[in-house]
Amino acid sequence: MRILKRPNTLAVFFAALSMSLLMSACEPAASDEPADASAASEPTYVLAIHGGAGTIRRSDLSPEREAQYRAKLEEALRAGHNVLSGGGSSLDAVIATLTILEDSPLFNAGKGAVFTHEGTVELDASIMDGATKNAGAVAGVKHIRNPIALARLVLEKSPHVMLTGDGAEEFARENGVEMVDNSYFYTEWRREQLERAKAAEGAMGAAMPPGEELAPGAYKYGTVGAVALDRAGNLAAGTTTGGMTNKRFGRVGDSPIIGAGTYADNATCAVSSTGWGEYFIRGVIAHDIAAMMAYGGASVEEAARTVIMDKLEAMGGTGGVIAMDREGHVAMPFNTEGMYRGRIDAEGNVTVEIYKD
Amino acid sequence: MRILKRPNTLAVFFAALSMSLLMSACEPAASDEPADASAASEPTYVLAIHGGAGTIRRSDLSPEREAQYRAKLEEALRAGHNVLSGGGSSLDAVIATLTILEDSPLFNAGKGAVFTHEGTVELDASIMDGATKNAGAVAGVKHIRNPIALARLVLEKSPHVMLTGDGAEEFARENGVEMVDNSYFYTEWRREQLERAKAAEGAMGAAMPPGEELAPGAYKYGTVGAVALDRAGNLAAGTTTGGMTNKRFGRVGDSPIIGAGTYADNATCAVSSTGWGEYFIRGVIAHDIAAMMAYGGASVEEAARTVIMDKLEAMGGTGGVIAMDREGHVAMPFNTEGMYRGRIDAEGNVTVEIYKD
Repeated sequence: MRILKRPNTLAVFFAALSMSLLMSACEPAASDEPADASAASEPTYVLAIHGGAGTIRRSDLSPEREAQYRAKLEEALRAGHNVLSGGGSSLDAVIATLTILEDSPLFNAGKGAVFTHEGTVELDASIMDGATKNAGAVAGVKHIRNPIALARLVLEKSPHVMLTGDGAEEFARENGVEMVDNSYFYTEWRREQLERAKAAEGAMGAAMPPGEELAPGAYKYGTVGAVALDRAGNLAAGTTTGGMTNKRFGRVGDSPIIGAGTYADNATCAVSSTGWGEYFIRGVIAHDIAAMMAYGGASVEEAARTVIMDKLEAMGGTGGVIAMDREGHVAMPFNTEGMYRGRIDAEGNVTVEIYKD
Repeated sequence: MRILKRPNTLAVFFAALSMSLLMSACEPAASDEPADASAASEPTYVLAIHGGAGTIRRSDLSPEREAQYRAKLEEALRAGHNVLSGGGSSLDAVIATLTILEDSPLFNAGKGAVFTHEGTVELDASIMDGATKNAGAVAGVKHIRNPIALARLVLEKSPHVMLTGDGAEEFARENGVEMVDNSYFYTEWRREQLERAKAAEGAMGAAMPPGEELAPGAYKYGTVGAVALDRAGNLAAGTTTGGMTNKRFGRVGDSPIIGAGTYADNATCAVSSTGWGEYFIRGVIAHDIAAMMAYGGASVEEAARTVIMDKLEAMGGTGGVIAMDREGHVAMPFNTEGMYRGRIDAEGNVTVEIYKD
């Protein structure tokens, strides 16, 4: 533990210890989700993903559409699992997984991203390595087919963590990243979502409370993310998105913000967020989960549940996270109607879920 | 405490309690800086500022130059104090203070900001209200005289938290903010710094380890920030900067990132960071201090010192923070040669410091 470098922080250690004891005394380790991990001593590997949280009800998805989502989420999980089972890194697994979701028109990331107010597509992504706490992020890129891969390139090739707009694309070009026309990202259903969002905005006029007029519930889900634990025991997390339908003014949400949308530290957990980005920024949600583990001695399940179901909820925010600790325990709390989510364990067992119940 | 909403988080409360007891048992409440607060029961108000951390040695500053810095820091402190003593809000005090530092050519913010690789100036700023945890941030703006005021406008008038580039300026224009030409920000000494940075970059060539070549120590200080506590007991924090000399690719540092460069929550503390931004982003430094108080029961002095002197140091990062709790206790740890810093208490007593010793 890094914080044990100074004598006086021994108190923190003892307090964390006493907290653990108190917690065990109060109740058995509760978990929303069963643990995926084998015994901590033998190396395991686990991958979990989300495809966005929001007002996703059974009545909204036809059986065919639901089957498409489930199939694509499973394909992405298996791609990441292949990396991990072959001894690849959690960073590589996150990239393999998210690239499939970015290339699918089903999710609000890469191909299939939502439109801005101006009718263009602007993409954000970030990735973090739990072993080194190195990170890379890009915001507001318009010609990058796979923003998560560019975020990885920033992590590896740039002294900076976060690159934005035209500058981020210049960095991509200098590093030989293939550019696509912005129209590559356009899909008809996202265009219709923009039209509906603009119509609703017009209908609501100025009477809406601040914060509501540009962000009604229906237009803000679909971000994708992944967290992974590899055989070497290293965690990684990544998140990629098109942001919010009808967004203006170069708005950046939580997805490219380290600490809000993405966080990974082997000492605690890897987290990817999805939901109403402004609340995730203000609550520093991904890091808050890690901090509750580091300083409060909470389990990943307890920390993730408290931060989403209590703290985010109390702020008025909506969304969810996937969070994984270094033993492969996974938590996937959300306070919306649904969240596309799934996991795959070392044996290749896949679980994919969409709705709350 | 928000986290006490669920029965099982009672354990967190008891553990925090036991941590406090353990800490008191281990050592007296240590403090790098004397507390400014009066008794918690009577309303007090305090303001603290920084003008950047870095390789600031006595030998680098002429007596005349040092006197200029001290005078401007005191002027800024008194401007914020006037707001607070008149019953104004901590947000207003932060704005009044930082506007003076932005308008001065001495600091790397507003007039006097450093140059990008392209020879232009691009500014970042953020502000957060500890009472509501509302926040506003702008990144990469080129024509806004006072970016901290624009960040405040985002906080108040936009449903979004973070606006970037041309979009942020469009938002400013629609809200009647006065625009300035980019040349307004140009100063001769910053132009010379860019030339020296470019020369050093060329001289170092490709042999430098990644992360070093664009960010040698001498070119990354000067960000300004303020934290304030008002008579109503509300905290606020703000940070504004020109970023890093010779920055490229739309690089964004920690200053506009909520959780990294700026954070405020009445439940814990208000923080403004300065230093090598990439490390502050990866360490989510401002929020980490607040989290160590919230979950670890640490005082603001202990949390700030541990995060900067132990955790940031262990990552290889350099810089400092100003942090203030709701009773007006102030901590100002930094691991560099110096940090421009100051504070003013309710009686108008001013302290301004620059060097380590």
